[in-house]
Amino acid sequence: MTETARTFVENARQQIGAYVALRGWIYRLRVLSDTAFIVLRDCTGEVQCVSATARLRSLRLKKEDAVEIRGTVRADQRASGGVEVMVEEVLVLGAASRALPFNSSGDIKKVSLNAQLDYRPLSLRTARLKDIFDVKNALLRSFRKFMEANHFTEIITSKLVGRGTEGGTNVFEVDYFGRQAFLAQSPQFYKEHGVVAFERVFETGHVYRAEPHASSRHLTEYYSLDFEVGFIDGPEDVIEIERKLLESMFLDLAKRHKEALERLDAWPLPDIAKAPIWTFDECLARLANCHGLTHLTDDLDPNAERLLCALAEEETGVAAVFVLGFPLSGRPFYTLPRGKEGASQGFDLLLNGVEVTTGGQRHHDHDALRASMSSRSVGPSQFEDHLRMFQLGMPPHGGLAIGLERLTAQILHLRNIRETVMYPRDRNRFSP
Amino acid sequence: MTETARTFVENARQQIGAYVALRGWIYRLRVLSDTAFIVLRDCTGEVQCVSATARLRSLRLKKEDAVEIRGTVRADQRASGGVEVMVEEVLVLGAASRALPFNSSGDIKKVSLNAQLDYRPLSLRTARLKDIFDVKNALLRSFRKFMEANHFTEIITSKLVGRGTEGGTNVFEVDYFGRQAFLAQSPQFYKEHGVVAFERVFETGHVYRAEPHASSRHLTEYYSLDFEVGFIDGPEDVIEIERKLLESMFLDLAKRHKEALERLDAWPLPDIAKAPIWTFDECLARLANCHGLTHLTDDLDPNAERLLCALAEEETGVAAVFVLGFPLSGRPFYTLPRGKEGASQGFDLLLNGVEVTTGGQRHHDHDALRASMSSRSVGPSQFEDHLRMFQLGMPPHGGLAIGLERLTAQILHLRNIRETVMYPRDRNRFSP
Repeated sequence: MTETARTFVENARQQIGAYVALRGWIYRLRVLSDTAFIVLRDCTGEVQCVSATARLRSLRLKKEDAVEIRGTVRADQRASGGVEVMVEEVLVLGAASRALPFNSSGDIKKVSLNAQLDYRPLSLRTARLKDIFDVKNALLRSFRKFMEANHFTEIITSKLVGRGTEGGTNVFEVDYFGRQAFLAQSPQFYKEHGVVAFERVFETGHVYRAEPHASSRHLTEYYSLDFEVGFIDGPEDVIEIERKLLESMFLDLAKRHKEALERLDAWPLPDIAKAPIWTFDECLARLANCHGLTHLTDDLDPNAERLLCALAEEETGVAAVFVLGFPLSGRPFYTLPRGKEGASQGFDLLLNGVEVTTGGQRHHDHDALRASMSSRSVGPSQFEDHLRMFQLGMPPHGGLAIGLERLTAQILHLRNIRETVMYPRDRNRFSP
Repeated sequence: MTETARTFVENARQQIGAYVALRGWIYRLRVLSDTAFIVLRDCTGEVQCVSATARLRSLRLKKEDAVEIRGTVRADQRASGGVEVMVEEVLVLGAASRALPFNSSGDIKKVSLNAQLDYRPLSLRTARLKDIFDVKNALLRSFRKFMEANHFTEIITSKLVGRGTEGGTNVFEVDYFGRQAFLAQSPQFYKEHGVVAFERVFETGHVYRAEPHASSRHLTEYYSLDFEVGFIDGPEDVIEIERKLLESMFLDLAKRHKEALERLDAWPLPDIAKAPIWTFDECLARLANCHGLTHLTDDLDPNAERLLCALAEEETGVAAVFVLGFPLSGRPFYTLPRGKEGASQGFDLLLNGVEVTTGGQRHHDHDALRASMSSRSVGPSQFEDHLRMFQLGMPPHGGLAIGLERLTAQILHLRNIRETVMYPRDRNRFSP
């Protein structure tokens, strides 16, 4: 076989009449007595290739094989992309097994989640999973883009910490050269250090929660979209930034991935500008009035989150609501109080029935933060190297964290958050 | 104080004559008997504010305080940015301590690294550290941009793994609900799974090495810029992509941060297109001929890396060289052999005297990979869920990893890699 530089499928479409070498996977294969049709896929697209059946016989081609196909590009209005390739040579570069449990052109919804995860690359090759991951990646990209356009500095913070952010529960322990360290539950402290350094910071990275329950909406390792912003007047400023952020992310998504959203029954996207802000007390009152729910005191539960989104949808047409003023008792010690009634400046965003964001305004005064730690028996002495940063001119500040997988799953109405993760981690699964 | 929306410094410059409310930190402060000069800094820039000294007396202002300054913008050609603000009101939003060990407008080079890290936000406010972090962030942003423009799909892979990538040395152990897990040393396996799913993948994320030495160039947690690409003909294809990648990253850097590079004595940037490819054997011969070094057998050492960069600089004008064909014995089991003499398709990029990239072509054939594991006594049975992915049509592939901190430090000629990290981790330090 002589040397011919490899051509991407998308470029071959512009080269009618040319002899090209394509490389990719056999996505579809139909072998008739005289003629065989191969749909070849690479990272730029798909193209149909047509060969004499006799030419392929000795290769024993099958779906999922990695191959090089050489041949001549021919215009064909019937073909997707407007061209097909008349095959002259085929070379198998990486043969697939004959005993795969499913293949990438079949209906992945019929394959169990465990089988999908055991053969993750194969499931990622399917149209459905590709759509889901495209949406997730687009959200991530747009998050970064919005942050950079709005004076936020990217920070990269350590995931190996001396203690848990919230004071020590549900953390994974690491043997750090014989000393005890933990995996960070959130970059909260570091984001606040980032504020006093750079005013506005963001981070995209893993966080870890050693939560023992294996539900359809929890992961022990997830990807958090975090920002923190200085010089705010109140938590409403953080909510306003999140509204603009999500509007911008959804607009980008609509521009680039509308067809994927349609295929996933996720079109149109919610108009977050219409999501109301309800106080926690107002939420309890609505739940009591509309549904007779009266057992909630210091937090919402999954059922309440669903009902509140439904109520918001009735009022505004959008199944999303910012809940502001959660009881202080249910929020971490760094949360600023709201008024004098035991409420906090913490908020959540509920979207399509599930919490996708937790945020709020934080303590910025050194002495008030220290007092809040003491009142929770957190022990300020463990946190001296954090408290020190509140003596460097810490402005009023707040921020939030969006779970990327959670957001993706809620936008796409996925039943299980694991569909959005390459290799999800939960109590039972930590391989491959 | 009445409500006036906060204005960013960069916007105030366009509002000559307007009454504005600025928020930021006191970067410089000069108090004369009648008049006081405050240089205020926010996330968009700096502006000089001029006040009657009497107005400020009760506030006891000091450098690093977070303040709001209200006043009228006035054109002043002598001032940086062309304007200054005539102060009418000042409000302290977050007072700094009077007992800080250094301040942000001083010479950070005179402050010990430990003091810099103990007061990290304060050191990040200095011009030098801001420049370093701007450069690092620009490199990261450009890496992602190049990848996205070249059909690479972003992947997010688990850092909690069932075993070490290279077979179990220097890994941190995690207590995973009573079971033994590890922090990932690299995303290598997952990148290869990504190739068989998406053809071209990249990841930006943390990796962990429990290396006991605390040198000026090692961290136990660092940020890795990884990519992996399918359908290559050899490791030279990976090198070629890295050349284009670095050229693109350096071009972006030159466009946006030339002044920072000049301030850091790092201008001009190296022209990576000129970096030669030398085989490992060729390197040993040069080291023997030019420096009489003959003790090296299966790897380079720091001294050899320095000397090779100096030799490359003499020949090409650029202190950078790709070293290809490291002995197989010194590379991980997944490295493809090169010819029959015990060499591998692994390469490093040495830049300004230090290795900043490790890459190569990998095994893609299932049976050959299994045999390579066995020959290293790695025990293929531990890796069944990895080997499985080599039956899904795995094409010839390769890739590389660039240490972001290492690259930043080498470009900027920094003596200690810790200068590039918010909170570096080494054997001795894991807080704050």
